[in-house]
Amino acid sequence: MASYEDLMSLSVRRGFLWPAVDLYGGFAGFYDYGHNGALLRRHWEDAWLEHFLGLNDNYYLIDTTTILPHATLKASGHVDHFTDLLVTCTRCGESYRADHLLEAATHEEHEGITAAETDAKIKAVGVRCPNCKGELGPSRPFNMMFPLGVGPTGQDSAFLRPETAQGAFLNFKREFEALRRKLPMGLAIVGRAYRNEISPRQGTYRMREFLQAELQVFFDPATFADQVPYSAVADVAVRLCWAAEKNQPIAHELAAKDLVARGLPSWYVYHMAKVQQFYMDVLQIPRERFRFAELDEKERAFYNKIHFDVQVNQDSLGGFKEVGGVHYRTDHDLKGHEAGSHQKQAVTVGTNRVVPHVLELSFGVDRNVWALLDLGYRPGERAVLRVPPRLAPITVAVFPLVNKDGLPERAEAVYRRTRRQMTAFYDDAGSIGKRYARMDEIGTAFCVTVDHETLEGKGVTLRDRDSQKQVRVADADLVSHLERLLSGEAHFDDPA
Amino acid sequence: MASYEDLMSLSVRRGFLWPAVDLYGGFAGFYDYGHNGALLRRHWEDAWLEHFLGLNDNYYLIDTTTILPHATLKASGHVDHFTDLLVTCTRCGESYRADHLLEAATHEEHEGITAAETDAKIKAVGVRCPNCKGELGPSRPFNMMFPLGVGPTGQDSAFLRPETAQGAFLNFKREFEALRRKLPMGLAIVGRAYRNEISPRQGTYRMREFLQAELQVFFDPATFADQVPYSAVADVAVRLCWAAEKNQPIAHELAAKDLVARGLPSWYVYHMAKVQQFYMDVLQIPRERFRFAELDEKERAFYNKIHFDVQVNQDSLGGFKEVGGVHYRTDHDLKGHEAGSHQKQAVTVGTNRVVPHVLELSFGVDRNVWALLDLGYRPGERAVLRVPPRLAPITVAVFPLVNKDGLPERAEAVYRRTRRQMTAFYDDAGSIGKRYARMDEIGTAFCVTVDHETLEGKGVTLRDRDSQKQVRVADADLVSHLERLLSGEAHFDDPA
Repeated sequence: MASYEDLMSLSVRRGFLWPAVDLYGGFAGFYDYGHNGALLRRHWEDAWLEHFLGLNDNYYLIDTTTILPHATLKASGHVDHFTDLLVTCTRCGESYRADHLLEAATHEEHEGITAAETDAKIKAVGVRCPNCKGELGPSRPFNMMFPLGVGPTGQDSAFLRPETAQGAFLNFKREFEALRRKLPMGLAIVGRAYRNEISPRQGTYRMREFLQAELQVFFDPATFADQVPYSAVADVAVRLCWAAEKNQPIAHELAAKDLVARGLPSWYVYHMAKVQQFYMDVLQIPRERFRFAELDEKERAFYNKIHFDVQVNQDSLGGFKEVGGVHYRTDHDLKGHEAGSHQKQAVTVGTNRVVPHVLELSFGVDRNVWALLDLGYRPGERAVLRVPPRLAPITVAVFPLVNKDGLPERAEAVYRRTRRQMTAFYDDAGSIGKRYARMDEIGTAFCVTVDHETLEGKGVTLRDRDSQKQVRVADADLVSHLERLLSGEAHFDDPA
Repeated sequence: MASYEDLMSLSVRRGFLWPAVDLYGGFAGFYDYGHNGALLRRHWEDAWLEHFLGLNDNYYLIDTTTILPHATLKASGHVDHFTDLLVTCTRCGESYRADHLLEAATHEEHEGITAAETDAKIKAVGVRCPNCKGELGPSRPFNMMFPLGVGPTGQDSAFLRPETAQGAFLNFKREFEALRRKLPMGLAIVGRAYRNEISPRQGTYRMREFLQAELQVFFDPATFADQVPYSAVADVAVRLCWAAEKNQPIAHELAAKDLVARGLPSWYVYHMAKVQQFYMDVLQIPRERFRFAELDEKERAFYNKIHFDVQVNQDSLGGFKEVGGVHYRTDHDLKGHEAGSHQKQAVTVGTNRVVPHVLELSFGVDRNVWALLDLGYRPGERAVLRVPPRLAPITVAVFPLVNKDGLPERAEAVYRRTRRQMTAFYDDAGSIGKRYARMDEIGTAFCVTVDHETLEGKGVTLRDRDSQKQVRVADADLVSHLERLLSGEAHFDDPA
């Protein structure tokens, strides 16, 4: 079990991530990724793309601009509704997010309550300014988008995008024409989003600039249920809690078919099962650490009709915390852009004209990376980071046992060969024990040592991070054996 | 030979890239990537990372924020110096970039001339407003960064970064400590940069939001020459033109050692050779389409001491155009941040204390993608996009010959197997000839057809995009044979 401080210490010391611009005293809400963090995150992205684009042959990756003109975000509703309630101290002038102040005072979540409710609650609970104990002014909506001006006189009003999703909606019609002209069609974007959070906090959990991985699935509500292979997941036990239980660390296990019986659409439940599979099988999150958490009408974003958060229970953050969400956005987005742009968004599928509805699978990449560190890191005498081997920043490290007798040359040849297929690292500094320890701490899945027996044709030593077992593998079989270990086709104890 | 219009037509029709936000009438200077463009670009990034991080074991990928506080860009010099000259029409109020107006009028480049020189030249040539023929006002510097405010009252002045490089400089000291504590150390960033261009134009060539791939190499000038394997490239013929020749379509071939004899540092020339190798060998740009172009003191960015642009001759853009650069930034950056942050940037290497100098290898990813389209696309009766097979959006397409007799099931099994190792695409629509044509146009390197003989154990048909030759390959060997074709270990005519 790792504390927040343990993780930050690991992160800074070993190049995962750290507060940005610390050279100038920091920059609240912004984090930079070091060499190990950048690899871990890139491997997470690769796994995400493989899993979610693999759901359907008609799902694709695209990439779109992070700056969007005012008209698009007016049409999407963000200009008017993408707000948090801000309260400002009448004495010292410090500003706060109202729901966070209430949460700190009452230990209950207060997302989605109105300004009037907030002001009444602040008065009832007696919340005062955390900075100077002064009286707080009335709460008011604060738009969380960053505005900016484009053009030589800044005349074109624009914003940094608050979510990647809008890029998919704006390109829907073009992609539909360029692709197979059929539904469902999925457009995925992995990219930056920006929110001018009033009070960024908890490390990478609430940042002002962050990375999202989102898949927007455009579908015809009349036919979608028949197009997903729901029957394959009907008996899967889905872990979740209901909206009223969200502040408690509990989860029920309900069969997918029972969720459908309770009224959730089968295509929605199918995607819940696929998201759960990604967390349990691909990311190897322990079952009891995972749950969906229902959001009620007041808590949901203004564009969502059905909304379950994806949560992972993290010791460093004090419980179940959101890492993603499954959002049924209806036809809100395409209808909004149709009205805003005066361009029809309906498409012809078979004999029907339909404005597609949207199911959004949305993930905060930084939050996911943090969850992997939280669940994987075990500090102590033998500090080790247990992340799935294919996600590890470094897949395999290669060492010469000693720096003489031709071992470095041989080890370098092994290193050059492996790094064409996976992320490899060469290390010849210090004792083998110290080199193992350094690799364990950053999660390196396998270590290969070249020794004198290697020169005699007896192969190399391959060591497993988690079991610390060692086996000898013939040089020529090393890369293919590692690939089988990574794909799960082979297990460490199998003879190579 | 493809015109600008040919490329834009291909791009829009087949999902490479297109003007962003066209739904709302467009957004000058912004482009979105469709499904094929996103894959082509991601494959370019992978090839770039492999080639340039492969130069030295101590070169790494990191990732840093795109928003930077005012103090950092004041220290880097961008707040004061990152400007273009703007002229505004005294009659209609339209604004223009002064050097572009002069270039249009004189057909010569005018980067880097002063405001006074510009005003004199505008008067001498008689340039008037292109919009209304009105008289132009005096030129004045215009900062190209996008300013924005961070925090609930926007109180923290910040900018979108104008180059990824600053992220590497700000993290230098932390990474030096977290890594091997030796020089040279390289920090690469692939990410967005932003410039509020006065007049964005020529498609993806001058955009307001674009993707950079930059490698900052931190080195000790006293030892760097001995640390690069310069002798391995001493006889390589480097293609370049001198500053005075930049407006002409010519290039000299000089041996690397002759460039060193003329006074360029050997470590600089070594990296020129490695950049040229990337273009000629990895991207397979024809030799005569590539050159370095020297920039003189007036044209160079304010922080560069030696600067050659990397240029590719592109028909769609009318000649040699910049796609990257090799920049010797001296110790300008770390010294600037040392002064701005009051944090020492010197490190101890051996017995020396040194503030490292920086060699920057900088590439515009969008410009590179465009160059691949420009050089690779041949419109016409058999339209084909010839990009290196490993960069192709789709590596291999899999077809059933007909949609019956169990061929689709067998083809889908082949598709599922190949797509674990490479980008694969399944297509069963239309005649085989039409499917080949669709794949040729988007550059798909190989097509696999499953036919009735496949069911008899006689393998599949593998077709090569460029030669249109076909060979039969045993099912079981297909993936490994494709991998050998991609790595260059096998050639198409070899028996599988």
